Amino acid sequence: MSVNHSGKSPHIAPIPDAPSLTRVVDGFIQDGTQHHINVVEEKPLTIYLNATEILTAMTIGDYPVYLALGFLFNQGMLTSMDEVQTVDFDEDIDTVVVRTKVSTDYEHKLKKRIRTSGCGIGTVFGDQMELINTIQLPFVEVKSSWLYQLSKTINTTPSLYLTAGAIHGTVLCYQSTPLVYMEDVGRHNAVDKVNGWMRSESVSAKDKILYTTGRLTSEMVIKTSMMGIPVLVSRSGFTAWGVEIARKVNLTLIGRMRGKRYICLSGNHRLTRDVIPDQKTAEVQPKNRLSQ
Amino acid sequence: MSVNHSGKSPHIAPIPDAPSLTRVVDGFIQDGTQHHINVVEEKPLTIYLNATEILTAMTIGDYPVYLALGFLFNQGMLTSMDEVQTVDFDEDIDTVVVRTKVSTDYEHKLKKRIRTSGCGIGTVFGDQMELINTIQLPFVEVKSSWLYQLSKTINTTPSLYLTAGAIHGTVLCYQSTPLVYMEDVGRHNAVDKVNGWMRSESVSAKDKILYTTGRLTSEMVIKTSMMGIPVLVSRSGFTAWGVEIARKVNLTLIGRMRGKRYICLSGNHRLTRDVIPDQKTAEVQPKNRLSQ
Repeated sequence: MSVNHSGKSPHIAPIPDAPSLTRVVDGFIQDGTQHHINVVEEKPLTIYLNATEILTAMTIGDYPVYLALGFLFNQGMLTSMDEVQTVDFDEDIDTVVVRTKVSTDYEHKLKKRIRTSGCGIGTVFGDQMELINTIQLPFVEVKSSWLYQLSKTINTTPSLYLTAGAIHGTVLCYQSTPLVYMEDVGRHNAVDKVNGWMRSESVSAKDKILYTTGRLTSEMVIKTSMMGIPVLVSRSGFTAWGVEIARKVNLTLIGRMRGKRYICLSGNHRLTRDVIPDQKTAEVQPKNRLSQ
Repeated sequence: MSVNHSGKSPHIAPIPDAPSLTRVVDGFIQDGTQHHINVVEEKPLTIYLNATEILTAMTIGDYPVYLALGFLFNQGMLTSMDEVQTVDFDEDIDTVVVRTKVSTDYEHKLKKRIRTSGCGIGTVFGDQMELINTIQLPFVEVKSSWLYQLSKTINTTPSLYLTAGAIHGTVLCYQSTPLVYMEDVGRHNAVDKVNGWMRSESVSAKDKILYTTGRLTSEMVIKTSMMGIPVLVSRSGFTAWGVEIARKVNLTLIGRMRGKRYICLSGNHRLTRDVIPDQKTAEVQPKNRLSQ
């Protein structure tokens, strides 16, 4: 599939009024009166790779197949869509089973681990860090005008965040245009869903920008690097290790993107400041806040 | 150990200037000038239960032993401190090994799972939901004046959040007094560290209040229930399933605690509104925001 970059409309946008994604819950406020409010759903999704149960994720429940595929690719458990034979989602038991033509390296490793030290899930982390050391993200120019336009577009796009809150968003962008806007109760799920879409649609990562509402922790930086996206932007703060990994893989990392303000922690060489706000609109750096 | 409830000073409070918890990172802001900012650390901690590698958590790195113990108890992998023989933290390899006198039920289950469907980590979730169905939290009165006092005290306590941001806090409280204030890059870690402290110090949960800065997701409600704490308060929003589980276990769940405003989603019968703010100070409900 060829992805249209015209920016007319994104390929996937939030559907804030989708009945399956929110529920009306009643509660009692400070003066004791009852209020009915719209709250986001959260449900378990168990992901299998062939016969191996990988994990149970808490998710809002949309795009389970993208979530499962994106997660497995981001963990390095899958490396190419050619490996994938079938992906089955069973709504009744909240399960996605990804079947490959031949059993994966991960399953071999896991079997070995199981013989030695029990479950090997934890060791995936080590394997992932080895992978990360091999990644060098390509150069792509990023204009500050795009970042300002993206913030504005994304923050005004109807979303579950705007209607119900308590949810994270991750948006795959090309220059100043949002292409795919995913939301989830876990920010890592939103990123995995974007990855699942990219893998399924064979979308190139090398000229894309990933925008997220969540903090830039090591997990977010690792996922973005595994996806091959050279630019990661967030309105939230970041951790020291997130910055360290970003510099290692040559990722352009931009945090605290609020209004006209931001700070670039890594890969500043990609950034062309074609729009520079005047001092009045951008005097002080906002605090390294958790999120919007 | 008997816990002093005098409220003179908490047993554990954040140490925002601890050199191991933050690092100065440089970045370039919107006008291209360089800034040096204080950023929280994040490092892996791998938790073993006897010979079984359980998981690698991303943590700020303080109180690794409390984190490991608290996590294992909250997962239902440990049920009593009497089981625990030794807990060893090896700083060089970021590993905590919790050894029990005899191998745990979890390890037996895991071995069985491994023979059938590979790694069993995902199935822990199922076991945990079974456990949750057996929990009914005890009655304890909660006064709205305590909640207002706690918010004020906690929000003005020197913390990594106030100095560096991008971090979550969880505070174990007795009436209007904070007892243990833990922070971590993952809000679940902060809760686990509180649990590890409670278990190590044999602190009773039945008359405590847990305050957190993070969203009230199913994970947070499940951990609080596993800890036996009957009241969970957050300045952030909540998910539908978080509310559902809270009602099932009879947990008093209070969200969006900002200034004089809050909403009680579950267990409103425990709440005595001895202080009711006037309409001016608490007119509108804040949105179900992600966090502060």
